[in-house]
Parts: sequence; C-alpha cells; structure tokens
Amino acid sequence: MKFLEDNNTKVFALGGLGEIGKNMYCVMHLNELIIIDAGVAFPEDDLLGIDYVIPDYSFLKANENKIKALIITHGHEDHIGGIPFLLQTVKIPIIYATKQSGELIKKKIEERNIKYKNISYYNTKSKIKFKHFEIEFIRTTHSIPDSHGVVINTPNGAIVMTGDFKFDLTPIGPMADLHKIAEIGKKGVRLLLSDSTNALIEGISMSESKVDEALAEIIRKHNGRVIIATFASNIYRLKHIVETCRKNNRKIVVLGRSMETQLEIGVNCGYIKDDIIIESEFANTLPNNEVAILCTGSQGEPLAALSRIADGLHKQTKLMPDDIVIFSSSPIPGNATSISRTINKLYLKGVEVYTNTNLSEVHTSGHALAEELKLMIRLINPEYFMPYHGEYRMLKEHTDIAVECGIPRKNTFVLENGEVLAISKNGIKKAEAVPAGDVYVDGNRIGEIGSIVIRDRKTMSSDGILVIIANIDVKNNELLIKPTVTSRGFILIKENEELIKQISDIANDIILRRLKTSRLNYQDLKNDLIQEIVPFILETTGRKPLILPVIMDVKK
Amino acid sequence: MKFLEDNNTKVFALGGLGEIGKNMYCVMHLNELIIIDAGVAFPEDDLLGIDYVIPDYSFLKANENKIKALIITHGHEDHIGGIPFLLQTVKIPIIYATKQSGELIKKKIEERNIKYKNISYYNTKSKIKFKHFEIEFIRTTHSIPDSHGVVINTPNGAIVMTGDFKFDLTPIGPMADLHKIAEIGKKGVRLLLSDSTNALIEGISMSESKVDEALAEIIRKHNGRVIIATFASNIYRLKHIVETCRKNNRKIVVLGRSMETQLEIGVNCGYIKDDIIIESEFANTLPNNEVAILCTGSQGEPLAALSRIADGLHKQTKLMPDDIVIFSSSPIPGNATSISRTINKLYLKGVEVYTNTNLSEVHTSGHALAEELKLMIRLINPEYFMPYHGEYRMLKEHTDIAVECGIPRKNTFVLENGEVLAISKNGIKKAEAVPAGDVYVDGNRIGEIGSIVIRDRKTMSSDGILVIIANIDVKNNELLIKPTVTSRGFILIKENEELIKQISDIANDIILRRLKTSRLNYQDLKNDLIQEIVPFILETTGRKPLILPVIMDVKK
Repeated sequence: MKFLEDNNTKVFALGGLGEIGKNMYCVMHLNELIIIDAGVAFPEDDLLGIDYVIPDYSFLKANENKIKALIITHGHEDHIGGIPFLLQTVKIPIIYATKQSGELIKKKIEERNIKYKNISYYNTKSKIKFKHFEIEFIRTTHSIPDSHGVVINTPNGAIVMTGDFKFDLTPIGPMADLHKIAEIGKKGVRLLLSDSTNALIEGISMSESKVDEALAEIIRKHNGRVIIATFASNIYRLKHIVETCRKNNRKIVVLGRSMETQLEIGVNCGYIKDDIIIESEFANTLPNNEVAILCTGSQGEPLAALSRIADGLHKQTKLMPDDIVIFSSSPIPGNATSISRTINKLYLKGVEVYTNTNLSEVHTSGHALAEELKLMIRLINPEYFMPYHGEYRMLKEHTDIAVECGIPRKNTFVLENGEVLAISKNGIKKAEAVPAGDVYVDGNRIGEIGSIVIRDRKTMSSDGILVIIANIDVKNNELLIKPTVTSRGFILIKENEELIKQISDIANDIILRRLKTSRLNYQDLKNDLIQEIVPFILETTGRKPLILPVIMDVKK
Repeated sequence: MKFLEDNNTKVFALGGLGEIGKNMYCVMHLNELIIIDAGVAFPEDDLLGIDYVIPDYSFLKANENKIKALIITHGHEDHIGGIPFLLQTVKIPIIYATKQSGELIKKKIEERNIKYKNISYYNTKSKIKFKHFEIEFIRTTHSIPDSHGVVINTPNGAIVMTGDFKFDLTPIGPMADLHKIAEIGKKGVRLLLSDSTNALIEGISMSESKVDEALAEIIRKHNGRVIIATFASNIYRLKHIVETCRKNNRKIVVLGRSMETQLEIGVNCGYIKDDIIIESEFANTLPNNEVAILCTGSQGEPLAALSRIADGLHKQTKLMPDDIVIFSSSPIPGNATSISRTINKLYLKGVEVYTNTNLSEVHTSGHALAEELKLMIRLINPEYFMPYHGEYRMLKEHTDIAVECGIPRKNTFVLENGEVLAISKNGIKKAEAVPAGDVYVDGNRIGEIGSIVIRDRKTMSSDGILVIIANIDVKNNELLIKPTVTSRGFILIKENEELIKQISDIANDIILRRLKTSRLNYQDLKNDLIQEIVPFILETTGRKPLILPVIMDVKK
C-alpha cells in the first residue's frame, strides 16, 4: 500500500473534525505512528441510551505495530475519555501526559478495571524522540491546568497542534509560553492545526482574573450562603474560589462526585489546599455567611447536586431564602433547557441567581476567540493551515481568519475525519482517506449497538411496545389459547382491558385464518400480525407502538 | 363555596405562568366566566412520546355552566393549540377570534374531526357585553397579524391583558393602537397582566422593517437561489418577502406543510398575493437568480423541508453550490443543537448561511423588551400588576421593571398556575387556588398517559426491553418448556444467542426453584425473575433494560 510506504508525512484526524468531541489526531511517517489525544464525544439526543461516541479505531488496530505513543494535550473528556476503550481495542506502548491528566487517566482506567501501567509524565521542557519524530511541548492557557500544544518535528518539517488554548495575558495560572511559540514560528512551521471552537466569536476572550474578581466580589458582599456550580475540571478557578473563601472566612462544602474527584486530584497535584473544606453536617452548625457550597450541576444535569438542591431533594443541603447561586459556567449546546429549568426552580424558591448572561462576569471560555486565533497564526506563521477541533462552520470561519492573516487560501485545508494530508518536501496534498466514523459505547460494550437497536429504542421511547404471544401447536396446526397481549410504555393495561381484549381478538382471528389456509410460517405470521394490528391501534389511540409478536410451541 | 359567591372578581391562569406555553387565563365574576386563550405547550424532552401538554380543564368542566365565552388574542399555537382538546372536554358556547386566527382554528378543529360552528369574528372596534363584563380590544404588534390585547371591564374595575405584544414604531403591518392604550390607562385600570417573554432582555426590540430591509438586500444582491426558512405564521414577513421577490424578478417555491397552510390563509385573508408562487418543477426551468424558496425547518426539525434539503433527501429540491440559506428566525430554547446540525450540513455542502446571530438583521422578536414593557406599564398605569406569559425568572424580572415604573411592590403579584387573585372595591388579595396542572396528549387520547408509562418509555429508550415468557402448567406445577427470551432495543438477538441462552437458563432455574418450594404466585415469580436477572445483565452488558416477565398457562 503506497500510503504507508512513500516518504510523505501523513496527518489525519480520527475524530474532532466537524464536531466538538472525540479528538484524536494522528501523525504518521513510514512505520511510525503517533496519536495525539483519545477523547469521547457525548451522544446527541437522538442516540438513545448511548453513553459515549468514540472514533472508529480500525485503522489503528490494523496498524497496531506502528503505534509508538499516545500523547495527551490535557485532561478534558473530549481528549482523554476514550482511553479506556482504546486500550481495550488497540495495543498502546506508552501514554505521555502531564501529572494532572495522568492522574485523571489512571482513575478512569481503574474504574473500567483495566490494568495499564505505561503512563509517562512529560513537562513543558520534555522532548520525546522517535526514529522519525521529535516531539516538544508548548505550555498554553486553557480551562484546565497543564494544557499543552504539541510540536511534532518530522522529516518533512514541523507540525504544530495547538491543543485547546486561549491567550490570557492576565491568567490566574501560568502564562502561555509566548516566547516559545514565537521561537517555533521563527524556526519555520510547515503545518499548523489550531483550535476552532470559538472561531465564530469576534474579539478576545475575557481574562480568568476578571472572573476571579467578579466571584470574589459576590462572595465578599453576600451575607448568606453562596452556592457555586462550575466545571469541576477548572482547577485554577476552584483554587481561587477556595482562596477567596479563606479570605472571607467561609468554609467550603463540596457536593457532587466529579467535583470531589477533581478536587482530590487538584489537592494531590498541589494546586489546592483543602484545609477549609468541611463536611456538610459541620456546615449546618456555622452561620450562613461562613459557608460556601461548591457543587456540580452547572449544566442542569437532573441528577447533579445543584439540580437536586433546586428540587429540594438533596439529602445534605436544603435551600435557604438568603442563599445565592452562581453558575460559573456557560451552557454547553443542548443543555440550555435543563439549565433554564433549574434556574426557574431556584427563582421560584426566591433564591438570587447569577449566570454569565445576566451581566455578571462569572465565567469565561477556555478557547481563543477570533483575535486570539489571529495571534496564534501570526506567531506560528505556518506555511499550511488546517483548522481543527470544531464543527464545520467553525472550521470554515477559522480558515477565513487564517486567510486574513496572510495564509494563501490554497494552503488551507478544511478536512473531514479520516481525510489525510500528505506532507512532502514539495508541498501538501490530500491523500487517500483512512476509515473513520462513529462507534457507540453503551454500558460496557463497544460498537455493538447499531441503527436497528437505536431505531427500536426510538419507537419505544415515543409509543412503547405491544407484545403479542401466540402458543401454537405446530404439529397439529392449532392455536392453544387466545393470544396473550401485554404492553409497556404504550397504555396502562389495567385501565385498558377492553382494548387489550380487542387486540387479542384480532390477533386470534389472524392466526386462525393463517392456520386454516397454509402451513405455518413463523415470519409470515409475525408480519401479518404487525400489518393488521398497527392500523387498528393507530385508529384507536393515534399511536404506533413497536409490535413484538412471539410465537411459541410448548409441544415441541 | 364562598369562592363562587362573593362579589369579588377573580383572575387566574390555568396555563402560562412559570412557562412559555399553554396560555389560558380566566376572569370570573359570580356566575360568569370568561376564558382568554386556550394554548398548548410543547413537551420538554423528558416527556417521551407526548405530543402536547394542555392545562388541567377540571375547574372549567366543574363550572361549565358559567362559561360565557372563549376569547382568542392571536393565532399562535400557545394560544389556540388547545382548542380541539378543550372542545372535546368542556362545553364552550362561543369563541371570539379575529379573521386570521378564526381560520386557523377552523382548520385545526376540522383536522381533529370536531364539529363546532360558534366562532364569531371580532375586530379592533368590537365590544362584547355580558351581564358583569364588557370586553374591548386593543390592536397590538406581534409576529402574527391581528394580535390583540383584551380589556375586561368588570364590576371591580378594568383588567387589561396585553396578549403577546411588542412596540414597533415602524412596523410593516399596522401600528399598535397607542392612543387607545393611553386612553384606557387614563380612564383607570385596576390590574395589568403583561407579556413577560423578553423581560430579561434590556433595551428595545429591532423593528420588523429593519428585518425587511436586511432580507431585501440579501435577496437583491445574491446571484443564485435564495432559500429562506422562517416561522410560517409570521404573515407580514412572508408578505414582504413575497413583495421583495416580486421586485427582484424572483418566483417563489413554497416547501413544507405549515408554510403552505399559513400562506393559504394569508392569501384568503387578503394579506398576500400568490401570483408569483410556483411549483418546484417549474422553478427548475428558471435561472437560479429568478428563484426563491420559502420553507419550514428554521428550528432544525429533522423532518422539515430545510433539514431534508440539507440532508440531500428532499424530493423536489437539491442544494446547489451558489445557494444561500437564510434562517429568518431565532432558536426556540431546546432547538439549538438541531439547528446547529442543519447549519453545519449546509456549510459542509459549501452553502453560505445567514442567521440572526452572525451579524445579519434577518430576524427580530415579536415580544417587547424591557424598555417596551416599561412603556406599556407607564401608558396603562395600573393600580396592580401581574406579569404573565413567562418562566419564573421572567415574571420576577418583569415585576422589578414594574416597580421601577412606580408600581408599589406590594401591588405586584407573581403567581403560579391555579393561584387566584380576588379583586374587590378595596383591593386585591390572593384567594383559594383552583386546580391546575399539566395534562398530556398522546395521539388522540387526552390525559391518559401518566408517570408510569413515561417512566417505562424512558427505561426502554435508553436500554430497551427484555421479555421473558414462561409457560407453566399451573395445575401440575410444571414448567412446560424452557422460558423464551426475546428483546428489542437492548441487544441484537442474532448476535447474542449465547447471552439469550444464559438468561433463559437463569430464568429456568428460578422458575423450577419456585415451583419446588411453594405454590405458584404470579407476582412473586415475576419479582424473582426481575430481581435475579437484572444484576446478571448489568454485570454482563452494563445495561438495565426493562424486564417484562410473562407467565402463561396454556392448559388453563
């Protein structure tokens, strides 16, 4: 296969293009393959019951012997969430990560009972050498500590992947390494892959220190309890909230599993001092203005701590009228309705609510806006540009931004997952694509659920199921008893005995007719039952439940 | 019941408070009850399979003989969508509506096969007299023609309900009747109920004539086809799009059922001239710059015309690279993801997309923003204020706006559906509440679906169903054959024969054990099957399907 043998360096995504999620990028040269990130995507609403969407790993499986390393840019789910599934499918010799993401990965693979020890820590100064590649790192700013861009020096020049980043000139964690970015740009970069998440938004993003100030002011001024829901992985923000509470003589109660996990890792990695974190029972003995609650639920997730508090269902915490609630977060698309529901419940209970929309500066994005993207492009000054990490309209817009910054349009590439760029000394061109697609994880099984199962779930979710069971003595061509009809999610059986009886009568007639006229064919009879019963039910109830006919022969 | 006998005038909502949807407001004095609007709400995502949510009509049913009229303020679904269900439940002597909403109502009740002839048309000058009430109308501006506020003169003073409104000083339809509003205010109003939809948004809303200009400019400049998705009921906007196309020598293709219906009514009511509307086959013979397509799908609804066009699945229309698509609309909360999906598909096909977010003025809201709300409050100058038509945070914010405009806070009332305000000569106070709540419509059945059916649908939607059928000869205490196991939406049976066999084996053991130790009790045996099989399946697959055990006795 020429693809694997020529002297070009190949770059492609198995996930992350045309979507926000399941980031997985590959760089390949002859017999060496480096993977950058292994994320999950969260299923859209119509993928009923699916827990995660992961990339199709079949190309990796087929080229397992070439894989040299998996490199992790940072510890968000869309960059590390797929690791357990990847490790179950493909042999990965080593994973390089920073301390914090390494800890998160260890936790994650332990939870899935996977034994894997080859996690190696890198830092900003690390260089990792392979036969064809030398890999360096660039410290960036993002909404999780230890986020890094990756420089992959290849026989065909340097490839830079920004990872998720923003430029924050007054960050509350370390600064992005502007000088290193400038230096790398100066040395010459063939191809830049850059974060497109916020390409559609003009201007530059608000600094995290503004958020810090805004939160500090609210926490300082308020005289009751302060309840703060935020993204649990935003460790620097958590650290600053903890420090603000310390200054204002407030103790902190932590509610919600992911918040507890992230804080624990934050403490272990030395980011956070946990001496003012207390149990909720103890908080109940303190005056309200000496308590803050840090909790999950900023997306209105029905089972998260804040939602249960809003519903009055949280075991440890009941709302008090002088509480305030801060959503130090932004709505992830698709969550607007559930967040709105939670906020309305809080208002109904008389609680004041701060969000990033009602003029409070209680959140900022971790991704670069248009002007910051321009700065990255100008500093790196690449020969070729490929927007990544984003939906198509973001990728398109990011391309326009790159063109504004002097990259010739013919040197820009908006790709789909699986499409391959081949870099040679002479230039870059599209090469033959590799397999890419969505694989569903449901429960502990990977890739087993397909469109039929999803379609059945969809039907049952809207109209339920009707089960019709016929006991037939096949040898004597005889129906033993009237068909049994039962149902779930369609109607209440007890309140619809007459309808159930009618359905059983119709099924009875169909079966007797069939048995009279021909030799029993299970599939034909099932089809007959479905064909005749669907219109009757639609007419009677206006619904189309899934019909599941079961034919049994107890005499067999 | 004192509630019905005292000389107070009661005002309450059966729907529309704490929500956007199913508006239904009542004014009652002694033996006279007037209903204003009868809307539906669209179910939130977790109400699987439910088509509509309507108010609990039980108070109306119990007071059927007092109902004098249903008055319709305008023809949006959240104000008229419940009429068929109301007419099926409660005797309504007469419905007052304007021509356009009357036509929509007729269409709606015909579709449900309801015979009802008592629809009477009112206009801006109409006065409707009852024993205790005299009702007048105020022409307002909204995103549908013929929208009206209602003045209900009662023995305890005037009550004004704004209906849905905005102030647009350069509208493309008729102006709101500012002078009549001022006059009514001058005469004295006891209670104002005002539209709270946009109370959270500062400033004043953009004029519809700005939208008209923006659309006209895009239509004029573009050299290919223009595809416009908008709310079908926004007749004035449709009218102006038609006129702009006429000026620019474009013919119009109409795609999507609700767009066709609304246009037909718009033509019948004299708003729109349909001479340049053509069939899509004819459009294919015209140059691209002489064609515009007006279609449904502005909310990314999967089955609507625009979504099918974006998917390449529309029978009559395929995308062309020089098409542009305009979303002349705003996302209804909850639809952001599906809209975004449609937009990305369009981008992927190289089509340019205009939305109200990317700096194009291609849509404006039909509801008053904060400054417009203030103008209404100042003009009406009511003694008491009750925000309506909105979620709680909107109602709260609207109350703050009213207080800013000089209404004493003690004279403002944020109520829930069913809560009653009793107006007497001396003042207003809360009275005993009436029953109110959500009733679900699924298919053609009202109120039948409850929480158990929804819960089962939820389980099946995420993990499917597993049916276990046991044929037992009860008299002889004997299991006739090994239990039959089948499933939908859980796993594919053909690919999991081993697992299905294991489940059947376990069920077999449980049943034999039961039959040995005790007399058969159907319910106990079902519970045993569920209790023991759930953990096995969870362990094996990580899923928790609904388990439906069926026990049959063919010998009975």
